[in-house]
Amino acid sequence: MIRFARYRIRSAVSYGILEDGAVREIRGDPFHYSETGAVHPLAEVKLLCPCQPGKILAVGGNYKSHLGARPQFAHPEIFFKPASALQNPGDPIRIPRDAIDVHYEGELVVIIGRRLRDATPDEAGAGIFGVTCGNDVSDRNWQHGPGKDLQWWRAKGSDTFAPLGPALVTGLDYGNLQVETRLNGETVQKQTTADLIFDCRTIVSWISGWVTLEPGDAIYTGTPGSTRKLTPGDVVEVEIESIGVLMNPVE
Amino acid sequence: MIRFARYRIRSAVSYGILEDGAVREIRGDPFHYSETGAVHPLAEVKLLCPCQPGKILAVGGNYKSHLGARPQFAHPEIFFKPASALQNPGDPIRIPRDAIDVHYEGELVVIIGRRLRDATPDEAGAGIFGVTCGNDVSDRNWQHGPGKDLQWWRAKGSDTFAPLGPALVTGLDYGNLQVETRLNGETVQKQTTADLIFDCRTIVSWISGWVTLEPGDAIYTGTPGSTRKLTPGDVVEVEIESIGVLMNPVE
Repeated sequence: MIRFARYRIRSAVSYGILEDGAVREIRGDPFHYSETGAVHPLAEVKLLCPCQPGKILAVGGNYKSHLGARPQFAHPEIFFKPASALQNPGDPIRIPRDAIDVHYEGELVVIIGRRLRDATPDEAGAGIFGVTCGNDVSDRNWQHGPGKDLQWWRAKGSDTFAPLGPALVTGLDYGNLQVETRLNGETVQKQTTADLIFDCRTIVSWISGWVTLEPGDAIYTGTPGSTRKLTPGDVVEVEIESIGVLMNPVE
Repeated sequence: MIRFARYRIRSAVSYGILEDGAVREIRGDPFHYSETGAVHPLAEVKLLCPCQPGKILAVGGNYKSHLGARPQFAHPEIFFKPASALQNPGDPIRIPRDAIDVHYEGELVVIIGRRLRDATPDEAGAGIFGVTCGNDVSDRNWQHGPGKDLQWWRAKGSDTFAPLGPALVTGLDYGNLQVETRLNGETVQKQTTADLIFDCRTIVSWISGWVTLEPGDAIYTGTPGSTRKLTPGDVVEVEIESIGVLMNPVE
């Protein structure tokens, strides 16, 4: 198990490997690296999104607890979020102009490690580099309310609607990890990824049948249970066991 | 008026400036460049997409002739296409697995030249670097047929569904350019961008209210008239006056 992070120290941005209270700097990125020998105390660095996805995809309705009475989909239902929506651990989710019903969605996110096109589930599983925490922030009005857009571009893609991090972790059994979301300290979502309707390798294989995946691409795998509206001053935390806590205040 | 291209010669990829039958190599990219002095005959280079968008957005239902009896939208309706869908001039549109109703959509594409966030229409207009031709290839079954997906990820985002090029042209009055699409030589779409319901600066300003735009980002502005199904062996050409012809065979 390796825990990668991306961080800024003074004006320089680097990747590194997290260990107790420190980060060991690496050259390159988590996909191809060597250690530089430099070590920084965690207190001296600002953690950023743990990788720089070329593209971000996400899955809708992938836990029975989230679908409620709605029927399950016959196959993974996918949508895009733009890279401009990424937000670093600790940095704010901003309620956009005219948004009236912005919700958190705590999720396991898989990060791709190699080019995948028409991958079988086995190939897809082997192509998953690691996992991290994500918050698929969503405006319900633009998604399916009275102010519904034709597509979910604002609902899912507004700036800061894709918090990601804090660590990109390899070597985990991501098929059975507990995902817990807390709103101002109160647990509001809690479920294991064993309950995903379509598991990670199935999702990745499905996507790769039409959209070629590249190293660093991020896939938000769906949110469990129900969600609530965010208001300025709130604090959202998405915690996944063995990965860490992705905390973002709301502005 | 400057006509930029991106091209490969032997194994090297460069940007350059097109002139009669040749391309003058530049250092950097169209946004920041200097000329190297090298000139290549066009016959010796392979033209590529004229820039490398970090993200691609597109507008739905933006010509009355395409909407037909459907009402106009109150504001631009936006969706994302992934960068993995880009295809070079001359390279094939591939009919994806299980696709049964893939159509061409000839469109004017604007390329952003500076970071835009919450831009007014005037600021948006000033932030448009140039324009090129695009084909917003679309599978109607996945978009709104019996096999409709929850979102348009495959319908609009499959590999090769975003041909772009051949030239990125600055200094044009892109508010009144004729867009013509030909299928196997027959004209199947022909309309001027003066007929766009939402013009380029309005579209860019609208998007920037929620999604920050960066230099190189591409926005497909909508298709006029009606479209037809593509089959392997077809050749699609999108021609826009003063820009050129974007030709792609279908496989």
